[in-house]
Amino acid sequence: MAKKDKKTDSSEAESLLELLRVPSGEVDVLRDFDPRATPGYPGKGKKDADEELEALDPELSDLQERLYAASTVDDMKAPSVLLILQGLDTAGKGGVIRHAVGMVDPQGIQLASFKRPTEEELAHDFLWRIEKQLPKPGKLGIFDRSQYEDVLIQRVEQFAPPEEIERRYGAINDFEARVAESGTKIVKCFLNVSRGEQRGRLMTRLEDPEKLYKYNPGDVNTASKFDAYMEAYSIALTRCNTEIAPWYVIPSDRKWYRNWAVAKLLIETMREMELGWPAADFDIATEKARVSALPE
Amino acid sequence: MAKKDKKTDSSEAESLLELLRVPSGEVDVLRDFDPRATPGYPGKGKKDADEELEALDPELSDLQERLYAASTVDDMKAPSVLLILQGLDTAGKGGVIRHAVGMVDPQGIQLASFKRPTEEELAHDFLWRIEKQLPKPGKLGIFDRSQYEDVLIQRVEQFAPPEEIERRYGAINDFEARVAESGTKIVKCFLNVSRGEQRGRLMTRLEDPEKLYKYNPGDVNTASKFDAYMEAYSIALTRCNTEIAPWYVIPSDRKWYRNWAVAKLLIETMREMELGWPAADFDIATEKARVSALPE
Repeated sequence: MAKKDKKTDSSEAESLLELLRVPSGEVDVLRDFDPRATPGYPGKGKKDADEELEALDPELSDLQERLYAASTVDDMKAPSVLLILQGLDTAGKGGVIRHAVGMVDPQGIQLASFKRPTEEELAHDFLWRIEKQLPKPGKLGIFDRSQYEDVLIQRVEQFAPPEEIERRYGAINDFEARVAESGTKIVKCFLNVSRGEQRGRLMTRLEDPEKLYKYNPGDVNTASKFDAYMEAYSIALTRCNTEIAPWYVIPSDRKWYRNWAVAKLLIETMREMELGWPAADFDIATEKARVSALPE
Repeated sequence: MAKKDKKTDSSEAESLLELLRVPSGEVDVLRDFDPRATPGYPGKGKKDADEELEALDPELSDLQERLYAASTVDDMKAPSVLLILQGLDTAGKGGVIRHAVGMVDPQGIQLASFKRPTEEELAHDFLWRIEKQLPKPGKLGIFDRSQYEDVLIQRVEQFAPPEEIERRYGAINDFEARVAESGTKIVKCFLNVSRGEQRGRLMTRLEDPEKLYKYNPGDVNTASKFDAYMEAYSIALTRCNTEIAPWYVIPSDRKWYRNWAVAKLLIETMREMELGWPAADFDIATEKARVSALPE
């Protein structure tokens, strides 16, 4: 299977930025994206997945450290990265954070998890709580859910009137354009899991006492609206897929591919930022002399 | 060396909670603690350090997940852990966070870094900014520096009058007792690095373009007051070493030992919390039937 993917989908050199990028124009998640695909995966499959993921660690860690280092010299001008993770329950947002994001230094990560809005948050525009969690300069920000919940669950469950939902697509595009212009590189990942896989994962949580805490009876309500969610995702992926804040669809029925793909996407994104090491804002020779003069 | 440590300092069974615990009574850092020691280390030394550290990963990750899981069921009663890291520049607070804390799921970590107080922070009592960063239930909180800066740098640099410094030791003990009683397990680690090692690490930062960003000319001013800092640490370790919030001294001249020891201390601390998996607050059979009824 992996072999076939390798032949048909990619050469080693082909970039996930291209392979997983949502094409412009109207997309339909169920029609256009295969949750079991493994585009661009260089290994054999699940059996070498740990190795393939670990192989990404040195470069990802290096890029994150460069990102952070830039912020130590001139905090105001330093760029940041914002990885937005969206997907249904069990799609693996937590798994990606644990296994892919978890490879980098915790000091470089700024994680925000958006759950049901509080009373205070609801009293503001939907982007108010998002704005507050934007990554600081030098940080790799991770959004576990995001502003997109306001056009996904809120659309499916009709928590907001249709004209308000309609307004939000444009508001999100304007917001993301402003954030990107202020120096934040935005990467939006939709973790695409199939109906059958989701059902299986929910059952697994119920069968394993160590996974039971992840199960929430409300997840079944959401799962029962699978098609409505896929439609809401299709609209969001169509209308908020900009050059400055592109969407990627991560096939997520295979956890090992999903984790690898997000890590690889992060690497390719950060490579394009051409992050150098900052120059010293002090005289190195003088400082060497000062250190040498310290008692041994 | 490691062999010798093993023979003299510990059997496999001896716990770091005992080996590294600051004894009650008056201590003197320079006299009482060897920064090059490796008590309790089960391996051979630097060459098997990666393996020894990785060997701790499964249990540390498991304990952190249990801690987190408890908070998903009854958020208010769930315990948390607070690891306080103190040490001079280059002692390795960042290294411990990257290599030891970095093994666990980023979602379970709540990291706070205390730098020079802001104007707003200075307008409040010194514990005001600390209180705000206490770990939420279920979290492993990490303080990179802490309330102890207010009796360390503030003492050495005389940023506060002697009677105010004097007041703070008791205030810290009262504060920590309250925090511990509210369900937070406190572990305080002093990363003990020698004068010579610190000097060497500062020089290394100046010699390596990829480490240059970590160098700050102010570090030399601090390093030149090594003895005064050791005295301030000795006082803090003597006066704020309580049963409910104990101090541990981590020999830190060997980075591989330091990282391993903090990870091991965390494990031993969390083991004592006897963290079980939470029971379901729903009927499992009912939920299995609901999931089974979802379309495949």
